[in-house]
Amino acid sequence: MRVVDVGKTAGHHPVPQERINEILVEEASRGHAVVRLKGGDPYVLGRGGEEREACEAHGIPVEVVPGVTSAVAVPAAAGIPVTHRGVARGFTVVTGHDEIPQLPTGGDHTLVLLMGVAALGRTAAQLVAHGRDAACPVAVVERGFRPDQRTTVGTLSTIAARAAEVGVAAPAVIVVGDVVRLSPAWESAEPPVSRR
Amino acid sequence: MRVVDVGKTAGHHPVPQERINEILVEEASRGHAVVRLKGGDPYVLGRGGEEREACEAHGIPVEVVPGVTSAVAVPAAAGIPVTHRGVARGFTVVTGHDEIPQLPTGGDHTLVLLMGVAALGRTAAQLVAHGRDAACPVAVVERGFRPDQRTTVGTLSTIAARAAEVGVAAPAVIVVGDVVRLSPAWESAEPPVSRR
Repeated sequence: MRVVDVGKTAGHHPVPQERINEILVEEASRGHAVVRLKGGDPYVLGRGGEEREACEAHGIPVEVVPGVTSAVAVPAAAGIPVTHRGVARGFTVVTGHDEIPQLPTGGDHTLVLLMGVAALGRTAAQLVAHGRDAACPVAVVERGFRPDQRTTVGTLSTIAARAAEVGVAAPAVIVVGDVVRLSPAWESAEPPVSRR
Repeated sequence: MRVVDVGKTAGHHPVPQERINEILVEEASRGHAVVRLKGGDPYVLGRGGEEREACEAHGIPVEVVPGVTSAVAVPAAAGIPVTHRGVARGFTVVTGHDEIPQLPTGGDHTLVLLMGVAALGRTAAQLVAHGRDAACPVAVVERGFRPDQRTTVGTLSTIAARAAEVGVAAPAVIVVGDVVRLSPAWESAEPPVSRR
């Protein structure tokens, strides 16, 4: 067995996606059985579909094995269920800003924002501008399930300042919605300044 | 080890949720280590949060292990990535109808509907009434990853008739959005009558 490390970290992609696709095709074309091991789920913002397409374009059959997505698992690590009876019946996972004007605005619909730390302040402001309550709870969960996991909570109006205060850094999963109140981190947090 | 079967199937819940919560508390209170084994992810419409709350209300510590949710895995089984570069950047998972008026309408935002087979025709009509293109692709995936898995495709305007035609039955996962075109089932399907 040979291991080809193409690992990405935030802002650091040593092997471009196109080259990853090529490696998969090259190795399979040599007759090797190739396992493309990814973190999370390959189809949740994981570019698994592109890798599959690259292989299939060369007649290489692909089997996709679903994984545990950080969009659900990292909130869970912080004690936040993305759905919860009487609190939230559905959830949306997004990365960018383009979709914000169209997202459900109720606290009973959970938003999970991936790769959103750098733009947190702007995102929070946009969500409020497009109808979500400024008092809607938010959690930013860093390093989910790791020993140094950290959950920072606030509201749409306070979270950017709080995150800056404690030095939140990517990668982190951001959860917006009433379900955040179910996290032990919410209970133990300092009450947001000038609120409750 | 003792196994207490509380398994649910569509429309058949032999043990009510409240009783499940009680069993967890009773068994743990007797000093047993209790594993509550669930299909999918316990926090994606799995009532895991309620079970955790029931235990914690009795001082019983709980560890939640995330799982592979059918909301992502069953589309994947049909070759549908819920996100795909240039096709869809985000996705929403819902069950009920209440949220339909608020959902993003673009084909580039994937909708995953769980427990939605019985209401498929009504849901499709509502999505169109609230702004989604009647030509938006839809897939209904039954028995994902089982040997008898079946994918039925159509558009918001045709899917209800097609599903009825082939006798689609719960449980199934419904995917709405342009990503459906990436499924092999889409390519091999009969062109929808009077379209393309």
